[in-house]
Amino acid sequence: MTAPLLFAMPGNEWLSAELADDLHYELGQLNMRQFPDEETYLRFASSPEARSVAIVCTLAHPNEKFLPLVFTAATARELGASQVGLVSPYLAYMRQDRRFTTGEAVTSRQVAHLISEAFDWMVTVDPHLHRYGALGEIYSIPTRVVHAAPLISQWIRTNITNPVIIGPDSESEQWVAAVAKDAGAPYCVLEKVRHEDRDVRITLKDMNKWKGCTPVLVDDIISSGRTMIEAVRLLTSQGWTSPVCIAVHGLFADNSVVLLVEAGARVVTTNSVRHATNEIDIGRLLAGAIGEVAVVSP
Amino acid sequence: MTAPLLFAMPGNEWLSAELADDLHYELGQLNMRQFPDEETYLRFASSPEARSVAIVCTLAHPNEKFLPLVFTAATARELGASQVGLVSPYLAYMRQDRRFTTGEAVTSRQVAHLISEAFDWMVTVDPHLHRYGALGEIYSIPTRVVHAAPLISQWIRTNITNPVIIGPDSESEQWVAAVAKDAGAPYCVLEKVRHEDRDVRITLKDMNKWKGCTPVLVDDIISSGRTMIEAVRLLTSQGWTSPVCIAVHGLFADNSVVLLVEAGARVVTTNSVRHATNEIDIGRLLAGAIGEVAVVSP
Repeated sequence: MTAPLLFAMPGNEWLSAELADDLHYELGQLNMRQFPDEETYLRFASSPEARSVAIVCTLAHPNEKFLPLVFTAATARELGASQVGLVSPYLAYMRQDRRFTTGEAVTSRQVAHLISEAFDWMVTVDPHLHRYGALGEIYSIPTRVVHAAPLISQWIRTNITNPVIIGPDSESEQWVAAVAKDAGAPYCVLEKVRHEDRDVRITLKDMNKWKGCTPVLVDDIISSGRTMIEAVRLLTSQGWTSPVCIAVHGLFADNSVVLLVEAGARVVTTNSVRHATNEIDIGRLLAGAIGEVAVVSP
Repeated sequence: MTAPLLFAMPGNEWLSAELADDLHYELGQLNMRQFPDEETYLRFASSPEARSVAIVCTLAHPNEKFLPLVFTAATARELGASQVGLVSPYLAYMRQDRRFTTGEAVTSRQVAHLISEAFDWMVTVDPHLHRYGALGEIYSIPTRVVHAAPLISQWIRTNITNPVIIGPDSESEQWVAAVAKDAGAPYCVLEKVRHEDRDVRITLKDMNKWKGCTPVLVDDIISSGRTMIEAVRLLTSQGWTSPVCIAVHGLFADNSVVLLVEAGARVVTTNSVRHATNEIDIGRLLAGAIGEVAVVSP
């Protein structure tokens, strides 16, 4: 049997090479460029005919990436791929998960529909499941979710002596508790009130018993990073050791990583979105999930 | 019966107000903004429930626009719109209309499929139909095409004394001949050889009999504008009166409008893509086509 083919969308080469290596997949060649009018030109330089195909595309800044991604999947099918899967280490549009106000778009469902139409399976890392219990509620294709928590715990154990884990809010408490337990550390969660996208107030309480520990703030996503920035400022103003901020997905909108570092934090992320702060490699876990779902799919 | 609703995607307000006015449609309110992580937030402030809906979105620089456009159509349906049509004065991705080389994406068909899934009908202005005879070959929904040629001819008659119409290549000869006939002017076409996206060589021949006329170069699209820029330079170097360059769709990649003006040309476009060169208004023709197709659709 011919090995499956793995294709990297532009910007995903770093992880794709590792995945192909781990999975013993062939790394395919995709030619993609922009015409002067900003339309995308796409050509498969490796034929996907009668091959199982996996396309790697992390979806930070999703709008500009989506159409080329759908072109790639559709073209692979037209060229005879036996199945086409999506490896999206960061899955966008998971936060708009209901109509909070009349007339709003529930974009999480719409993206799920488009991806389910274009692909046969999907693998992602810690999607922002809030009001959904599982991806299966909105995706009609087989999906696998990779959990970065064990890798985060392991990173903390290896790198931080005497940590106290701090979660962003009560909703994340279960996840934070698991990270902390695995890291052999105590934990607490911030209380926060969000006023606007960029305006968040937080409070720290009952933390004095851990004074002397290194505060390790963990969250699934750092976007504008307001909560973490405020927490870091509060902690340093109260004389705590330099905090560590860990996120699964470092999106870093509004230059938030610079603000975090300026506030005195060390920032650590997984390589679900490529960034200088990537210290935790999710490649091996992703490869395992791909191997599972690509086999059971039609 | 309640009047249909017309919504402008961001950047299309200018034309939408005119269309709503012409058609006696109600201009609906769409709230759209970007979250810090560049995901799109969308909300219908005017309810599309049980209303016929038209969404106006010209598709120059299509990649970043496509996902928000599909969200808008899908949300209108979810909110109970009786039908959802697309008014796309400039329709992107019409040039990749076959696999010129093995493995290439035929993006014109893929975009047609996505639009046909999301909308009930579509109206556009002079799509770049080259190897397709009609949009119906790739679109599975009712479509109407507005032809700007009569408006271009009229503009030439009104503004240019003694014009000679020059088309970009032999493929466009039929269209150029029609524009010229209607403008009461002679015409010819350039001979051109395209080496790369941005490298085009052209020749002018048998033009001496029109010396003294004003050369009017016409084309459907000005993107990188290489052909027109070369033609303008050639004409001015041969002592012709300042040429006029007219396009239906002014995309102006690579700052081509500045290069055209610097080479001595006057540039004129329709308002299918908003630009300072818009001197030809396609609003009334578009309104007529929308009125036709929105009525006959299911």
